[in-house]
Amino acid sequence: MNSILVVGSAALDTIETAAGKADDCVGGSALYFTAGASLFAPVSVVSVVGKDFPHKKIEFLAQRKVDLGSLEIADGKTFRWGGRYDKNLLSRETLFTELNTFETFEPKIPEHLQNTDLLFLGNILPELQMSVLNQITKPKFVLLDTMNLWINHRLEALLQVIAKVDAIVVNDEEVRQLTGFVNIPKAVKKLHSMGPKLVIVKRGEHGATLHHVDGDFFALPALPIEEVVDPTGCGDSFAGGFIGRLAMEGVLTPATFRRALVSGTVVASFTVQAFGLDRLVTVTPSELAAQEAKLLSAVRVP
Amino acid sequence: MNSILVVGSAALDTIETAAGKADDCVGGSALYFTAGASLFAPVSVVSVVGKDFPHKKIEFLAQRKVDLGSLEIADGKTFRWGGRYDKNLLSRETLFTELNTFETFEPKIPEHLQNTDLLFLGNILPELQMSVLNQITKPKFVLLDTMNLWINHRLEALLQVIAKVDAIVVNDEEVRQLTGFVNIPKAVKKLHSMGPKLVIVKRGEHGATLHHVDGDFFALPALPIEEVVDPTGCGDSFAGGFIGRLAMEGVLTPATFRRALVSGTVVASFTVQAFGLDRLVTVTPSELAAQEAKLLSAVRVP
Repeated sequence: MNSILVVGSAALDTIETAAGKADDCVGGSALYFTAGASLFAPVSVVSVVGKDFPHKKIEFLAQRKVDLGSLEIADGKTFRWGGRYDKNLLSRETLFTELNTFETFEPKIPEHLQNTDLLFLGNILPELQMSVLNQITKPKFVLLDTMNLWINHRLEALLQVIAKVDAIVVNDEEVRQLTGFVNIPKAVKKLHSMGPKLVIVKRGEHGATLHHVDGDFFALPALPIEEVVDPTGCGDSFAGGFIGRLAMEGVLTPATFRRALVSGTVVASFTVQAFGLDRLVTVTPSELAAQEAKLLSAVRVP
Repeated sequence: MNSILVVGSAALDTIETAAGKADDCVGGSALYFTAGASLFAPVSVVSVVGKDFPHKKIEFLAQRKVDLGSLEIADGKTFRWGGRYDKNLLSRETLFTELNTFETFEPKIPEHLQNTDLLFLGNILPELQMSVLNQITKPKFVLLDTMNLWINHRLEALLQVIAKVDAIVVNDEEVRQLTGFVNIPKAVKKLHSMGPKLVIVKRGEHGATLHHVDGDFFALPALPIEEVVDPTGCGDSFAGGFIGRLAMEGVLTPATFRRALVSGTVVASFTVQAFGLDRLVTVTPSELAAQEAKLLSAVRVP
């Protein structure tokens, strides 16, 4: 079993979708990731919340051997985000962003976590991601997430981080924006040349693909979900499932990368079924196994 | 080996893409389908062309045991279509449509073809598709194609055809438009309730999915193609690969449907590599086999 460290945001989200509205959902990239990854392996979290954070709502993580000792509780309020999805869940608008304690977040990795095996750099300012990288001693595998905001406004810093990581997870729009190529295979090749040996492209309802610089190409569909309640955190928990499975497998091979993509896809299929982390709290090992079996059956060629 | 009949258009296309311009490419739904299907099994074609049609350009089909005896040569000119793709191949505009001999096309199925095993109803007026259906005696399997034009302007006639076929092939936009559901799993369920037991959803660069009314769900990615020259006829030749493989397999089972989707995907990956039918003329059995191996490898979970 490899160790996992995640650095990212912890937040309270107010979310409106066609299915309804939910206030103050526990969220943020670090906690969505952790909720997914901890289904497979222990996780250590570096993030920050305010005095108002409802710790009771993440007690389920402690039961899954998540180390929350470096979830700093700072003076002030927790990062808050509010968003509204269009009725078809194809786009969303941000209603408000209150950075609060997250505004001055400077991730400090305690010594006992500096030798982590697997590192997930959640979607935060690239300069902070770089600072985390510089504090880590020889990780086996670093997976980077980012977003259009940093591609638009912090490109230079972002490119420096991209040059140093083993893998990056992007959606189809991000890979196009980052590389200037609309054709995804071309865009992925360009992204490989920028640093990461492994590129994961999230394609929403169409699934995800994994591209290794040596040419290995692997694809999975999304599991069909008729009632998508809330897509928030889908990508982070997908990354959580991916890294969690890698940690559980214990080795990094083309085969374990593929199985990791299976677990990421399975986790994301639960995330979207309820608001916030709700479904990732309740999902059982047998439900995970059944969903994995369904996914494997969907790509089996007899 | 099952017999195959296709009814659809035969055309001369003028195509502009970022890769260049090609005049008077042999095309049309029936000929794209046939170029794909004939890589696997013999095909009989019912369509119409004008006196100007360059028969030399489809001599390769005769060598593949395609029966062109019912490709009627009528007085007048061949159906012509001109289109221009945007540089990213994400959309196209029609520059001209000259129906010519196709305007008065009324498919007559000669007696020796009325007992075909497999029937592909290419994308023509739904009333003509229905007329073909009425001329066929107990086919084993009918696959229907259509387009947004008929969904918008001939919905009632189209729904009557949909109610009578075994399978339909649609892209993601068409399945949404036909059913009113944006969520594809919901849309597919609705489409199943309208008649077809089997629904195939073409997802362009993201691949294709196969949905059986009994719940069987199968998905394949598109093969990564860095240099897409011309997407024209991709869907028709995909259907050709699908039906051709089914004919070659000789039986209709969940396993052969899956392998048929593999062949459809493989054929489409060649279609887009050159203008018109060009790549479907030159592709060799060993190239098909290599591409199939690549596709199977892309969905193998170790």
